[in-house]
Amino acid sequence: MLAMPETILLTPGPLTTTAATKTAMLADWGSWDEAFNELTASVCRDLLEIVHARDSHICVPLQGSGTFAVEAALGTLVPRGGKVLVPDNGAYCQRIVRILRYLGREAVVLEHAEDCPADPARIDAALAGDLAISHVAQVHCETGTGILNPLAEIAAVVAARGRRLIIDAMSSYAAIPIDSLDFDALVAASGKCLEGVPGMGFVITRESSLESAQGNSHSLALDLADQWQYMKRTGQWRFTPPTHVVAALRAAIDQFKAEGGQPARLARYAANCSTLVGGMRSLGFETFLPDAWQAPIIVTFHSPPDPAYRFDEFYRRVRQRGFILYPGKLTRVDTFRVGCIGAIGPDCLREAVAAIRGVLQQMGVRRIALR
Amino acid sequence: MLAMPETILLTPGPLTTTAATKTAMLADWGSWDEAFNELTASVCRDLLEIVHARDSHICVPLQGSGTFAVEAALGTLVPRGGKVLVPDNGAYCQRIVRILRYLGREAVVLEHAEDCPADPARIDAALAGDLAISHVAQVHCETGTGILNPLAEIAAVVAARGRRLIIDAMSSYAAIPIDSLDFDALVAASGKCLEGVPGMGFVITRESSLESAQGNSHSLALDLADQWQYMKRTGQWRFTPPTHVVAALRAAIDQFKAEGGQPARLARYAANCSTLVGGMRSLGFETFLPDAWQAPIIVTFHSPPDPAYRFDEFYRRVRQRGFILYPGKLTRVDTFRVGCIGAIGPDCLREAVAAIRGVLQQMGVRRIALR
Repeated sequence: MLAMPETILLTPGPLTTTAATKTAMLADWGSWDEAFNELTASVCRDLLEIVHARDSHICVPLQGSGTFAVEAALGTLVPRGGKVLVPDNGAYCQRIVRILRYLGREAVVLEHAEDCPADPARIDAALAGDLAISHVAQVHCETGTGILNPLAEIAAVVAARGRRLIIDAMSSYAAIPIDSLDFDALVAASGKCLEGVPGMGFVITRESSLESAQGNSHSLALDLADQWQYMKRTGQWRFTPPTHVVAALRAAIDQFKAEGGQPARLARYAANCSTLVGGMRSLGFETFLPDAWQAPIIVTFHSPPDPAYRFDEFYRRVRQRGFILYPGKLTRVDTFRVGCIGAIGPDCLREAVAAIRGVLQQMGVRRIALR
Repeated sequence: MLAMPETILLTPGPLTTTAATKTAMLADWGSWDEAFNELTASVCRDLLEIVHARDSHICVPLQGSGTFAVEAALGTLVPRGGKVLVPDNGAYCQRIVRILRYLGREAVVLEHAEDCPADPARIDAALAGDLAISHVAQVHCETGTGILNPLAEIAAVVAARGRRLIIDAMSSYAAIPIDSLDFDALVAASGKCLEGVPGMGFVITRESSLESAQGNSHSLALDLADQWQYMKRTGQWRFTPPTHVVAALRAAIDQFKAEGGQPARLARYAANCSTLVGGMRSLGFETFLPDAWQAPIIVTFHSPPDPAYRFDEFYRRVRQRGFILYPGKLTRVDTFRVGCIGAIGPDCLREAVAAIRGVLQQMGVRRIALR
């Protein structure tokens, strides 16, 4: 009754994973066992390698969704008197602000329009104008819209001003290059561009930062410094790890490497994205973002202005044809989103566009372009 | 290289699960999709039903390990000025105290010996003597030793004194009866006696308690009131759920019901436990606890005093024979633990005892009893 039909997830995670990744979950692992310790260690080594940080940083895995890891990074690394600049151009930036309010850490919100990338010059000016700002929390690819923020430029500005950078790379890590950046922490998760299953996040950070962060955390479960100390001493997670999720991630990373690593993944996602956007434009759809700022991760489309269009019905019918879309996350504009990530190629996106075309005809939706 | 051989986990979770539970993870679910919402809702309904609480309580699932859910319950339900009595007879009681210190909530520790169950009369006296104590946080089965605390008597005392009860039922839920108890919250997880895979916890609580708890939480990720409000409104988890873990739990609960529910599970675990304890005693081993206080979940055995015995070597050799044991968690006494839970029956425990016998002979361990 509850079985999921063989649908393709065009969503930003959970996403469609390979059979090899899922079958890696067909074994039970002892969380105290040496074999599982080595599984964890090998995953962490590879997670560092993907951003060329094996010599400079350490990787601390954490149970829960990516947001748990973002909160853990902020709560552990920002001291109680810290002040965090948050360049805000979307829902996940706003989530960081919300977390900081829970934590009682001061947040300075640098508002941007949702269709504009974070502006390094404005960040520089904000840092110059407020010496109390200790950290910048920057979302790399803002999943709310799909916009790519200019991380390298922002990292350079933050470093030049002598502040610390915490990167939410949830939906960019392993697909968009993150090279030679001066960051204090980078946060991502198992179930996004790594194409694992959801259930764990991780924080790539400096051991020295964690050492000086002891006693900061508001939470035992989310205390990265404590998680790291314990793992360093024992090779184990402090609390029961999601063993099957870790095993799936190991398999997913093996496939990532076999595919050719980050450049190959980016090339496939870019092909997915251009196939999707080209196909949708041929139907009359308009993207929310200009192409220059569009990350090849998830694309926001304006909803058709035709009165025959309703998202719920559109979603349901596209789903019947085998594709799961994603709702929009903008409050002021009516949109929906289509993901380009997961174990899928351009053919899949072509079929999705064909399914969307069929559904629009079925629903009698004729006006698709806004103008 | 990293593949886990077909070993049986005699550990308190992660534990050995059935093939049916693991194969339920071979599909990808959309976290925003109606089918997944229904999966979550059906799991929550059954989790309430297992403790006969469908009319009185609600169930809030949470990403992460069981400890995340324990911290979420304490941080959400205990107000900032609250004071919590913690009857302490083991490692998981002490973890609650540690969490309360992180949260800045006052903890009153009621120390017990680790081989004595929590004493309702002492709890009653502590509550009578300190009217500022708002909550009692009680571990049901203390996994550190395997001791069963007298929950019904404690619940009656707490209710009679007009205080609120938070139960850590991590390793008892679904196996030990928890009936008609007056509790504010009961916390458990997917990967223990439900025989799912690890990756999510849940809190069974009152809607009225959550409503009055808004604004209490120290953490966005661990804010149960916010998780519940969002789920009630949308049917969805706030942040990416561990979809495969939830699907496995659905399959595990189906098997739990087919087996005959909690009474059948208790009967099987009791048979596992008596087979284990009987077999180990025939080899000369002594249990740390008297039988009267032993929960049929996990058994702590004294390590043999023979100089030829070393736990690491013992563990490694028993593992080679297909069984994964668990280290002791007592600081003052040298012990190890053997779990009785998971998708295993008495035959499996008999084979484990035979493996242990063989290993002791191999290692030349002759003195097994303490005296």
